[in-house]
Amino acid sequence: MTFANALYDGLFADVEMAALWDADAQTAHLLAFEAAFSRAMGQAGRFDATLAAQAADHIAAFSPDRDDLSAGSARDGLPVPALIRQLKAGAGDAARAIHAGATSQDVLDTALALTLQSTSDLVDARLATLVQALSDLSDRHGENPLMARTRMQAALPVTAADRIRIWRAPLVDHRARLTLARAQTERLSLAGPTGSTDFGGVAAQMAKALGLTTAPQPWHTDRSGVVGYASLLALITGSLGKMGQDAALMAQQGIAEITLAGGGASSAMAHKQNPILAELLVTLARFNAGQAGLMQQAMVHEQERSGTAWALEWMVLPLMAQATGRALVAANDLVATITAMGDPHKSV
Amino acid sequence: MTFANALYDGLFADVEMAALWDADAQTAHLLAFEAAFSRAMGQAGRFDATLAAQAADHIAAFSPDRDDLSAGSARDGLPVPALIRQLKAGAGDAARAIHAGATSQDVLDTALALTLQSTSDLVDARLATLVQALSDLSDRHGENPLMARTRMQAALPVTAADRIRIWRAPLVDHRARLTLARAQTERLSLAGPTGSTDFGGVAAQMAKALGLTTAPQPWHTDRSGVVGYASLLALITGSLGKMGQDAALMAQQGIAEITLAGGGASSAMAHKQNPILAELLVTLARFNAGQAGLMQQAMVHEQERSGTAWALEWMVLPLMAQATGRALVAANDLVATITAMGDPHKSV
Amino acid sequence: MTFANALYDGLFADVEMAALWDADAQTAHLLAFEAAFSRAMGQAGRFDATLAAQAADHIAAFSPDRDDLSAGSARDGLPVPALIRQLKAGAGDAARAIHAGATSQDVLDTALALTLQSTSDLVDARLATLVQALSDLSDRHGENPLMARTRMQAALPVTAADRIRIWRAPLVDHRARLTLARAQTERLSLAGPTGSTDFGGVAAQMAKALGLTTAPQPWHTDRSGVVGYASLLALITGSLGKMGQDAALMAQQGIAEITLAGGGASSAMAHKQNPILAELLVTLARFNAGQAGLMQQAMVHEQERSGTAWALEWMVLPLMAQATGRALVAANDLVATITAMGDPHKSV
Amino acid sequence: MTFANALYDGLFADVEMAALWDADAQTAHLLAFEAAFSRAMGQAGRFDATLAAQAADHIAAFSPDRDDLSAGSARDGLPVPALIRQLKAGAGDAARAIHAGATSQDVLDTALALTLQSTSDLVDARLATLVQALSDLSDRHGENPLMARTRMQAALPVTAADRIRIWRAPLVDHRARLTLARAQTERLSLAGPTGSTDFGGVAAQMAKALGLTTAPQPWHTDRSGVVGYASLLALITGSLGKMGQDAALMAQQGIAEITLAGGGASSAMAHKQNPILAELLVTLARFNAGQAGLMQQAMVHEQERSGTAWALEWMVLPLMAQATGRALVAANDLVATITAMGDPHKSV
Repeated sequence: MTFANALYDGLFADVEMAALWDADAQTAHLLAFEAAFSRAMGQAGRFDATLAAQAADHIAAFSPDRDDLSAGSARDGLPVPALIRQLKAGAGDAARAIHAGATSQDVLDTALALTLQSTSDLVDARLATLVQALSDLSDRHGENPLMARTRMQAALPVTAADRIRIWRAPLVDHRARLTLARAQTERLSLAGPTGSTDFGGVAAQMAKALGLTTAPQPWHTDRSGVVGYASLLALITGSLGKMGQDAALMAQQGIAEITLAGGGASSAMAHKQNPILAELLVTLARFNAGQAGLMQQAMVHEQERSGTAWALEWMVLPLMAQATGRALVAANDLVATITAMGDPHKSV
Repeated sequence: MTFANALYDGLFADVEMAALWDADAQTAHLLAFEAAFSRAMGQAGRFDATLAAQAADHIAAFSPDRDDLSAGSARDGLPVPALIRQLKAGAGDAARAIHAGATSQDVLDTALALTLQSTSDLVDARLATLVQALSDLSDRHGENPLMARTRMQAALPVTAADRIRIWRAPLVDHRARLTLARAQTERLSLAGPTGSTDFGGVAAQMAKALGLTTAPQPWHTDRSGVVGYASLLALITGSLGKMGQDAALMAQQGIAEITLAGGGASSAMAHKQNPILAELLVTLARFNAGQAGLMQQAMVHEQERSGTAWALEWMVLPLMAQATGRALVAANDLVATITAMGDPHKSV
Repeated sequence: MTFANALYDGLFADVEMAALWDADAQTAHLLAFEAAFSRAMGQAGRFDATLAAQAADHIAAFSPDRDDLSAGSARDGLPVPALIRQLKAGAGDAARAIHAGATSQDVLDTALALTLQSTSDLVDARLATLVQALSDLSDRHGENPLMARTRMQAALPVTAADRIRIWRAPLVDHRARLTLARAQTERLSLAGPTGSTDFGGVAAQMAKALGLTTAPQPWHTDRSGVVGYASLLALITGSLGKMGQDAALMAQQGIAEITLAGGGASSAMAHKQNPILAELLVTLARFNAGQAGLMQQAMVHEQERSGTAWALEWMVLPLMAQATGRALVAANDLVATITAMGDPHKSV
Repeated sequence: MTFANALYDGLFADVEMAALWDADAQTAHLLAFEAAFSRAMGQAGRFDATLAAQAADHIAAFSPDRDDLSAGSARDGLPVPALIRQLKAGAGDAARAIHAGATSQDVLDTALALTLQSTSDLVDARLATLVQALSDLSDRHGENPLMARTRMQAALPVTAADRIRIWRAPLVDHRARLTLARAQTERLSLAGPTGSTDFGGVAAQMAKALGLTTAPQPWHTDRSGVVGYASLLALITGSLGKMGQDAALMAQQGIAEITLAGGGASSAMAHKQNPILAELLVTLARFNAGQAGLMQQAMVHEQERSGTAWALEWMVLPLMAQATGRALVAANDLVATITAMGDPHKSV
């Protein structure tokens, strides 16, 4: 999935992040849930032990008909019923030990938890790299004088290190925020059709198998964890957007406080060096800011499950993850292109 | 381009609309601009007539290296400089009669105008079909009594025709709004690097060749037409969302004012018939509503061209077109599934 | 009503616009509806002619207990039932010729139509003044050279007139858009409890008395006119925000392409001249952009009237009108402070 | 400050919350900052000790000219420079020990920290009350059967307690989230004109005097704490909106799963009992959701201080606090009106 069209992939796409959200990854997560469910239900004696083991093996080895899953989404609003039909079709007696007692939302929300887990890994790693890169940048150029500007007007002289500190500090905090957000998203969902089934020890067993935690209570209709996560993604891109905005302003002729190697070419003006990555960071910040507001709209679930609110998450959150991933790559790339910042020879 | 991942294509994707916005269509529009530009500049005597004709023929027959265009987007922030390089590379002397005097924004905004033209054709045709389908629905079920509800509470008896009229009337108006919005978007962009070049009769010539009108003034930084178009897309999906919301409410057990054939299956509850399309319409309405607000953020261009604001359009508007296309298909499908509305045997 | 608190009234408040939306103005509109309704129903023979005339006179002279109306809003969700009780209480037999057959939404939406009428008058007058002020500014400074900038980078020399044209042209268009938007908002609402009552000639009579038109069909649940109006307000503040953004960028030391008399003082830095009005225009543009998205969310009405969607309009639209009013005043003030633009002595 | 106009105060206003954000409260916070600053600077030997003590006493007893502060906001973009002028004017020699070294943003952001402190107190207290009220509601009606509904369709029987648990659990979590959000907002701001002044022990002294903590680093341009707080307010109103949505759906004739005492009257239909508070909760949820997205837009600060981004917070955050306050009151009121939930005599 990309924004715009493939001609813009170079600008907008983040291949690595995209892979975490694509049909391959999601299919694997759906199957992982179902296999773990069958196994844990068998171990707990809720499914026949032999059938459960057979079912789990069958699921683990299964390769779904993807077109049928998409067709199932059209018909059922989500791919799970079609997947279950496919799984059961070839399972013989073990079909009885597949999915029974669980509900589509358990499957999809657990798949989301797994997706957010890998997303958080990637985001955190890139944040760490960026934090280090900014420290290095400060080591290289930090002592150079720079004119602080407030309300876009020259204020008082500071150093490049002061400006870089402003860029870097929130990113360190975001890593801490991410740790908290992970705890509220990397949770198994297992609550059955009405969100009130008690699965006893099955949940702990499954969570362990999937590398998740058990949720203190069902979260079918409480999207706080997911929406809060989206808010954090917007905070991250917001901080990166601030850095991009600064870089674009510093790169103006007449200001000339930063030098960015390899600016973008113009089709009409050969002399131009456009600060593409800096601008992109602002765009992605504004994009995610708006999407974060939409995710908040998804808090209003009707009764035990809202198809409308839930599907809104499906539309918005993958976009936000992509935008965040791209922003982190762009920010790291931007910092790498900074060959000068402040001016050691100029008194500001 | 789709939302979520391919497993959800059946739910979210609109193949027909997607084709209007994909790389094939965009590439064709970019080439159409460049060919028309070379030709019109030649006819106006601004390019050597022979070279211009050669250039136009060359462009019309050209098949760009798409990967290079995407790489160009990464480097230059948009695919046009790379495209111009490709076009010129094989053009010999005619290279001098390619793109000279135009700017990337002229190309991309004209391509957008062409894309919105085909989008509007599709939207209008589907609206027309839906308006007719609702008239037919009223013919079939309109006389049945129905309880009007305000603030979700039973108000007074009306007829199914009254409810259907509420659904249908705004759609008729939207078609009229679309006619106005088309006039403000199906416009050539031709204003040169700083948005202030006077191309004389070239614009009229190009507009005619491309099936567009000339804009009364350059619109590089005035996005009112495009943003207003986005607002109309949200109005359309908003009206469809209202219809979907009503259908979902009418389908509740205990209310039972509508019968929808072929509801979605549940993975856990075999008896359920979920009103998937009705819910989807609400989701798409809320999605587009939020995106319309983001498009408004793209009004704030800096100086003669904002890379940040412009790229925000590129991210958001294709999503809105897709959502609108899908909503129109879903609405038509939903109406087709209504086998009963109101109850001829029940006094409300 | 103001934003923030009274300490910021100087920054955010627009006294003239506020007066169009305050309780005085709204009360007058509510009474105007009820008086016109009684009178028109009497003239049409639907109310006893004598009682109707008495009722209309009574209403026209009535001064409601405002605290009771506010208490009524708490209880009933809107002030109309309480107002009707008050009106009837002192009306004697004429009480029978008050409001009967109409519904709260007719009253409040008609009051909104009247409010938007005066709002549009004010917005249009201020737009006209601003358009003229920009023409005058161009007359004074238009010939001065200016460096065009795209993606915040120096592009090619233009003149101040070119930049001013970019600011001015959309405002001329917005006036034309406003004429269309007025036609879709300055409409009587008269459709009765379920939005389907046929009042015959009463509507035309009332519309004439109130200076409105009759709506082609009831608009209780079709908010396209109102939401489209909100979108236009955001387009207007968006265009003004673009002008403000430019002014703030031009006022940077090192760029120095504009001189703004009387910039804001800093509490810490005596030398600063902050471009307060320029910044404010950007803030108001971003504010209204977000609110326009929220107004789009209000399209999803349930059934014959949604309390939730309707009340969302009540919260958002007055804020947008205030922000628009303030932006227009600020823009006119900003243009008046421009004492230099471009530099006649500098080659760019 | 209220939404709409005074006729709607009963519906929208929260007098208690409004008082925390009004000019009185803000003026007191501004003075508290300045008095604490003078005192701490004196104690640290940065101001003359005697003059500092005099200044602090003078400030503590000072009653500003509010109109002049508002006029100052118009001129300077914020009320602080005018306040400092007023404070110094009557301070004699002690004027030298007022504000020197601090900046307007230190004052206003610290005032915001104090405002959020009292806001959080109020929000938390009301959440606690609501959590208890829901426990009590469950004690009264929890055993009654209720039909669980997913995608608005009857699913399987549960109990009223199950539904109430869904409403209550997120609120308990929100209280925990609030504790974290408080730690990120109840922080002194003290960083001087460019956000990089080192005030040594002055900050700790001031923070202690004001009941705040010191921030680990300056937060002039890092709005993560404030924006994250706004996100939490939207989560809270989102959860309450979900409860409201459920209540409105349960109150439908034909569903009749809840009885709400004292519903709102209709001006046209005497038999109606409108679920005003339930609807209001949905409205406030959608309002805050949109505003949370706007707060995210305020992350993009330029350089050392953005007038545009900062002022956007001033417009949006007070609205969100009001909406949250009102939602909490409305939710508590709504729960108090529930006289029946589920039906002990009906098999679902």
